[in-house]
Amino acid sequence: MSADDARLALAAEALSPIDGRYRLSDPELFEQVSAFLSEEAFVRYLLRVEVALTRALSRRGLCDQSVADEIADAAQRVTPQAVWKEEQVTQHNIRALVNVLQREVSERARPIVHLTASSYDAMDTARALQFQDSAREVVVPALKELAAVWIEIARREAGTIQAGRTHGQHAVPITFGFALAGHVSRLGEPIEALERRAGRLVGKMSGAVGAYNAGSLFFDDPVAFEAEALAELGLKAADHSTQIVPAEYLLDYLHTAVSALGVLASAADDIRHLQRTEIAEVGEAFDERQVGSSTMPHKRNPWNFEHVKSLWKTFMPRMATVYMDQLSEHQRDLTNSASGRFYGEIVFGLAAAARRMTRVCKRLVVDRERMRKNFELTRETVIAEPLYILLAAAGHPDAHEAVRTLTLRAERERSTVRALLAEDAQLRPYLERLSPQQRRVLEDPSLYVGRAKERALAVCELWSVRLGLAGAGR
Amino acid sequence: MSADDARLALAAEALSPIDGRYRLSDPELFEQVSAFLSEEAFVRYLLRVEVALTRALSRRGLCDQSVADEIADAAQRVTPQAVWKEEQVTQHNIRALVNVLQREVSERARPIVHLTASSYDAMDTARALQFQDSAREVVVPALKELAAVWIEIARREAGTIQAGRTHGQHAVPITFGFALAGHVSRLGEPIEALERRAGRLVGKMSGAVGAYNAGSLFFDDPVAFEAEALAELGLKAADHSTQIVPAEYLLDYLHTAVSALGVLASAADDIRHLQRTEIAEVGEAFDERQVGSSTMPHKRNPWNFEHVKSLWKTFMPRMATVYMDQLSEHQRDLTNSASGRFYGEIVFGLAAAARRMTRVCKRLVVDRERMRKNFELTRETVIAEPLYILLAAAGHPDAHEAVRTLTLRAERERSTVRALLAEDAQLRPYLERLSPQQRRVLEDPSLYVGRAKERALAVCELWSVRLGLAGAGR
Amino acid sequence: MSADDARLALAAEALSPIDGRYRLSDPELFEQVSAFLSEEAFVRYLLRVEVALTRALSRRGLCDQSVADEIADAAQRVTPQAVWKEEQVTQHNIRALVNVLQREVSERARPIVHLTASSYDAMDTARALQFQDSAREVVVPALKELAAVWIEIARREAGTIQAGRTHGQHAVPITFGFALAGHVSRLGEPIEALERRAGRLVGKMSGAVGAYNAGSLFFDDPVAFEAEALAELGLKAADHSTQIVPAEYLLDYLHTAVSALGVLASAADDIRHLQRTEIAEVGEAFDERQVGSSTMPHKRNPWNFEHVKSLWKTFMPRMATVYMDQLSEHQRDLTNSASGRFYGEIVFGLAAAARRMTRVCKRLVVDRERMRKNFELTRETVIAEPLYILLAAAGHPDAHEAVRTLTLRAERERSTVRALLAEDAQLRPYLERLSPQQRRVLEDPSLYVGRAKERALAVCELWSVRLGLAGAGR
Amino acid sequence: MSADDARLALAAEALSPIDGRYRLSDPELFEQVSAFLSEEAFVRYLLRVEVALTRALSRRGLCDQSVADEIADAAQRVTPQAVWKEEQVTQHNIRALVNVLQREVSERARPIVHLTASSYDAMDTARALQFQDSAREVVVPALKELAAVWIEIARREAGTIQAGRTHGQHAVPITFGFALAGHVSRLGEPIEALERRAGRLVGKMSGAVGAYNAGSLFFDDPVAFEAEALAELGLKAADHSTQIVPAEYLLDYLHTAVSALGVLASAADDIRHLQRTEIAEVGEAFDERQVGSSTMPHKRNPWNFEHVKSLWKTFMPRMATVYMDQLSEHQRDLTNSASGRFYGEIVFGLAAAARRMTRVCKRLVVDRERMRKNFELTRETVIAEPLYILLAAAGHPDAHEAVRTLTLRAERERSTVRALLAEDAQLRPYLERLSPQQRRVLEDPSLYVGRAKERALAVCELWSVRLGLAGAGR
Repeated sequence: MSADDARLALAAEALSPIDGRYRLSDPELFEQVSAFLSEEAFVRYLLRVEVALTRALSRRGLCDQSVADEIADAAQRVTPQAVWKEEQVTQHNIRALVNVLQREVSERARPIVHLTASSYDAMDTARALQFQDSAREVVVPALKELAAVWIEIARREAGTIQAGRTHGQHAVPITFGFALAGHVSRLGEPIEALERRAGRLVGKMSGAVGAYNAGSLFFDDPVAFEAEALAELGLKAADHSTQIVPAEYLLDYLHTAVSALGVLASAADDIRHLQRTEIAEVGEAFDERQVGSSTMPHKRNPWNFEHVKSLWKTFMPRMATVYMDQLSEHQRDLTNSASGRFYGEIVFGLAAAARRMTRVCKRLVVDRERMRKNFELTRETVIAEPLYILLAAAGHPDAHEAVRTLTLRAERERSTVRALLAEDAQLRPYLERLSPQQRRVLEDPSLYVGRAKERALAVCELWSVRLGLAGAGR
Repeated sequence: MSADDARLALAAEALSPIDGRYRLSDPELFEQVSAFLSEEAFVRYLLRVEVALTRALSRRGLCDQSVADEIADAAQRVTPQAVWKEEQVTQHNIRALVNVLQREVSERARPIVHLTASSYDAMDTARALQFQDSAREVVVPALKELAAVWIEIARREAGTIQAGRTHGQHAVPITFGFALAGHVSRLGEPIEALERRAGRLVGKMSGAVGAYNAGSLFFDDPVAFEAEALAELGLKAADHSTQIVPAEYLLDYLHTAVSALGVLASAADDIRHLQRTEIAEVGEAFDERQVGSSTMPHKRNPWNFEHVKSLWKTFMPRMATVYMDQLSEHQRDLTNSASGRFYGEIVFGLAAAARRMTRVCKRLVVDRERMRKNFELTRETVIAEPLYILLAAAGHPDAHEAVRTLTLRAERERSTVRALLAEDAQLRPYLERLSPQQRRVLEDPSLYVGRAKERALAVCELWSVRLGLAGAGR
Repeated sequence: MSADDARLALAAEALSPIDGRYRLSDPELFEQVSAFLSEEAFVRYLLRVEVALTRALSRRGLCDQSVADEIADAAQRVTPQAVWKEEQVTQHNIRALVNVLQREVSERARPIVHLTASSYDAMDTARALQFQDSAREVVVPALKELAAVWIEIARREAGTIQAGRTHGQHAVPITFGFALAGHVSRLGEPIEALERRAGRLVGKMSGAVGAYNAGSLFFDDPVAFEAEALAELGLKAADHSTQIVPAEYLLDYLHTAVSALGVLASAADDIRHLQRTEIAEVGEAFDERQVGSSTMPHKRNPWNFEHVKSLWKTFMPRMATVYMDQLSEHQRDLTNSASGRFYGEIVFGLAAAARRMTRVCKRLVVDRERMRKNFELTRETVIAEPLYILLAAAGHPDAHEAVRTLTLRAERERSTVRALLAEDAQLRPYLERLSPQQRRVLEDPSLYVGRAKERALAVCELWSVRLGLAGAGR
Repeated sequence: MSADDARLALAAEALSPIDGRYRLSDPELFEQVSAFLSEEAFVRYLLRVEVALTRALSRRGLCDQSVADEIADAAQRVTPQAVWKEEQVTQHNIRALVNVLQREVSERARPIVHLTASSYDAMDTARALQFQDSAREVVVPALKELAAVWIEIARREAGTIQAGRTHGQHAVPITFGFALAGHVSRLGEPIEALERRAGRLVGKMSGAVGAYNAGSLFFDDPVAFEAEALAELGLKAADHSTQIVPAEYLLDYLHTAVSALGVLASAADDIRHLQRTEIAEVGEAFDERQVGSSTMPHKRNPWNFEHVKSLWKTFMPRMATVYMDQLSEHQRDLTNSASGRFYGEIVFGLAAAARRMTRVCKRLVVDRERMRKNFELTRETVIAEPLYILLAAAGHPDAHEAVRTLTLRAERERSTVRALLAEDAQLRPYLERLSPQQRRVLEDPSLYVGRAKERALAVCELWSVRLGLAGAGR
């Protein structure tokens, strides 16, 4: 059986779609995320923490530099598999790891392994690194790539007129680029926040209940020692921890991830509705061999956008788990033993949604003609808004009501507001007070698009600078 | 690399703890659930549905019986792996399955495969079977085994006095068996409901939008044909479906699963609190080689019960996903494409919690002496309740207030209510009206245990009969 | 200040929109629900329970019938306001109620009030009554009225052709009545379940920890006494309770309520999308004076349907609270003291959604012409499905692929599948094997509507019988 | 009927416990929150926005300064009641408000009211102000007061030894002040974040679809005009809005509120468990007239802490609603019409929890003697941790295993680790290498408290400075 077949066979048995279907359908993404957030990756991070600890210990003179080097070398040889086999015996993952690592080193190095540390010093610190690294290497780049694609389309379509839609009803016009720029702006904020909050994730080296009980046996300044050990890993400590770091650092990070996923889901909803048969303003370029439906060969379903929304439905509710994990009795209880292990899936979900969105937006077909045609459906009624406002500004005492009545009449008489307006003697004096430019808007409702184009470009410029996406589509 | 090592290596890369850690730590459970709810199992169920469909078609004369047999044989040869490879091309899982199955049959059988059916006829019907079978074969048996273990302990400890506790404070006494019987009763209800609701899961064979459009091309009574095809699989149809079956059948089933998980979590909370150092009424028998804590070798942590609670924290919030999946636009949208694939994990979570609870309850050590000692801590104050009630029944006009004052006095004077009572001339007349049996309770508060023992036994009897657990611990 | 103005003023200060905006906008609904689920109603239910208890006590001879009568009379005089004033002193609501009730009765009756009962005997029993009565009097009737309105429209529009829609894309046709019948069917199930589960809500009279400690002081058979006292109220007991009744009875009821709300939200989504400017198949008849938008006088927004969906977004997540309240330590903790008090709002939310849906569906305007026009948009592509199926049934070895290719060609050549089909020599032999009726469907795709009409009528008939809605719209 | 009685009567009918029970039990809090977040307050904020808009318009020359002044004066006279009565007619709240305001001004001022603005320009801007002001005036002060109380106790009890507890089991010791300092630290972060995020809430003045369509009729730089109008209110605009401001600003604020509530709930859990009968380390000073239990007069239940947890259970799940409200189709749909109106309740919940926690923590009784006694229960086993670490540091090759074995032996032989240690020849050489200070810890386990006291004081100092709580308890 080839390695590929073995992978296929195992994925087939998987219970999580992530390790089954999605692993097979996007192996690149799976490997990217797995490199940081799998059990294997966790063991490697734990070893990094143990190595950092012994380096810090050697600097404080608790062992020779050579002992720290020896342990660092040994850590390279430890396999997750060996740790798990040991765990079958000890029923304790960190004790298993320490045992295996100790077996790989000389007798004098052995007692130094894990010295002064508690299990969760290693585990919570390793976890901070896992989420920090996967944020920097996978999540943020994937979101930035999407932002770049959206910026490119938004710039290209900055002037493409489109019916604005509120309540699913035509409102006054915008441009398609303006609409997309909104998604860019809403996504830009959480991208920056993800970087910031990943960078703030904390580790700890404060022992079994956070009071530096063990560290104090050796150091007058165990708090400084903690800072030194974590500095080896590029981390900081919280100003207070118990057996575990405060839950809120990771909570804030995951909240931001879910919030970014919400932005993607909202954009996905918009685009798939624009693909409705009757609207048909955008479409996804299809591969000729691809099957849209097993029984309706003519269909082109927006299933990629539906999938993005579905990922949001999958992962958003999991925030309740993360909120529940804030509650931990006294110096900690272990009721987050299972729940906390699923957090990495949220990271996967966000990255998967971003990549899929990017892929499909890259081949998004924009039907400008159809956008204009749809806009034309209501061009005569859209005029009601500028008309009422201009009448008011021109001093009409009850402009809203006047226009509302006009609108109802136009509907009843199957005429248009503009036609009725031309004949309306009462309104004429107000219309004469308008500037030529204001009058032009009443004559051509497609001019009533405000600053849509300029704002689209400005927002794209702003975020391409803030996110360092120089040149995306300019 | 051995098959075992390959499994270990792949599990190590898994992103879901289910396919990683938990697969390794309880391979038996993993295999049990995977047999029904993995991708591979799904493909096998889809094939079963396709076979049932062709059988029904042959009975209606759309093909020979031999064609149906041929397709049934071919279905045995189709592997999930082959289907997936085809899916790379078609990008559509059912079209892939149909293509692969068609390649395995003769030219005349080919057009019969999937004839009249829509993708979701196969998929939703297969899903109903997956959840139905896993309920019957895994979930319900696992829960019944737990109920049996609890019943056994509850019967054994039916008379073991224990402080009742409300708000974490001692209340009037119960017995430990009575407390456990409560868990039995709360678990019994959802066990029955799981069986009932799994049995009610529906399939469909009503075509692409549920109106039997395709079926009507061939049958005057496509609704009857649907019933025949589903009867091959032991299923019924809903009275109305769209492209998909109504979401509520599975929703109700999963609600019951999560509700059962909540009962387990509540029991787990109770037991782990009873293990608190200061309370110590129950304990888990530990393996001598097992490590309780990496730095505190003396600790015996209730991590199994914590884990059960953690599974609840993991899966309970997922109900929000299932509720969201109720909303599907028109004849269906596909925004449940990802979210629906995770439902099987809830089944795993419940089964895992049940099995772990069973395993650890089997070796639960009950410290009767400690239970009594803890009860003794408040035996003198507990008397307040029967005293106030008996005084009231004896005609005291303000018994509650009288006893409340007595209690405060006892506290202030470091005396006991009973001692003060003996000297209280005002209350004496009322006490004299009590029956001997009533007076005995005031003399020995441990008699104030109501019908705890009898109820424990009665509840155990009731549920061992209803759940068919004859002989559990009697 | 008039009573009305006082009401307005106080509602203005409300923090909950229920007691503010919604109370004012639908006072009838507010009063209906408030009559069962307000604090005042709760106090009245508590008094009913206390009266039932004393009746049962008198029957057992613990007091004269006249004492029970006296207490029943006194209960009529007790006001919620008096109870609350007492609660300021006692800081305990049941003790306050008992004190106030005792003050209203003779000295000999006083000790009988609340005798043998614990606070939660009264509270949980009263709560069961609150939810049971509000289900019977408000929720179920409101939902049945909606079902009747939907049935009426579904029957009327049973034959109105409409494009079926999956993924927001046209699929094969249905009728509008068929679509609505689906909502009827999905709503019918939870209506029945609400009645059933409301009827199963349990009370208790088993004392402070559920072991009948107090009752046992007076009765040999306190379980029988509990049954007698509850029978006065039309309730049953659970087979085991602690200080409180098992959480799962109310949980199941509220799950069903939220599930029904999900059905309404799904229907609301459907209808508001059908109101999209480009689709415009249905509409809401507007009052001439009503303002659709403050700046766009021409707009007719589907805000009522949006509101129904919004109610679902408000109340669905609250199920997580109800699930959390399943966990209660030992014989109960009080961490549901606040959370449980909000359950009644879910009932309000469901009733409000049902009433609004009913109101707006009653004036729903169905544009049959537009439905047909929209269907016509894709009539030529819809044919792909029956064509592929009929070719397959006629023996074509690769019908799906053949039709998919034809569809792509039609798109490329701006022709239709039917036109290309007429010229296709390869397919001709298969077409010749079709029955006249089958061929007619290929000629007129609007015939490809399956059993939509018949199913619409059958489903309406089924549910109008099951829900006792004789004559709705027939 | 007095105003008080009217209030009582209306509260009695309320469906929300906030407007019923909680309004009565803490009227001060209710009024504080209601002043910012009631419907009445909303109308007042809307008027403030309209006034700010006209001021900005007058500065741009669209009207005289005197017109703006007239409108500002008129706004003072508009009552929420009048607006609602008008809303009965218009069925549109902003149109109603504009109508009422217009009626209060001269004919020339009338058209200026609301000119260029869309409904949600007013509504979303008003909402930002509501949450910003209530954060600054109610939420943050309430949380700071709590932080101050905790800091005071933490400083006072910085040296009070207490058993550290993990998994509910005794771990190595801490001090009670150290534990409380942890809550201070976890609360300090969200307090700062609430201030920051409330300060970042944005308004808008970009019109019906966000493209400045109306504004562009009058200004070349409508974006600058928006900034000027919002500056009148101390707000900024988002860089892109649609009909509404991006959901994420308020989402982040509410996330922080719920996260702070989680910190309170976690602290509440800790304290109520410390009140368990068997632990009894802290207690709440009770009023003599207060009733702990209606049937068990002796009980002192931690119901205030339970209530705080219950508030968290009530409001935490509502985040799912806020996350769902991120999704709004195109330039907005109105499916947040009901859901968004409930957000203010989350603010109430947090403030209520903070105030209750503060109130009860102010009278928290700390039983230092009992804390020490509880610690003494495990003083002999606690030694295992420092012993194993010191042995390892002294070069023992397998210290953890050696101590684990010793611990098991001590348990089996009913001896102590220290006693066995004294006789253990194999371990002696390692012990001799220890420093005197290290040896002292082995002799007196209460010295093994690490830097608990120093950290408690340092954390308190840090946060009292950061939160500006000078002098809290120093």
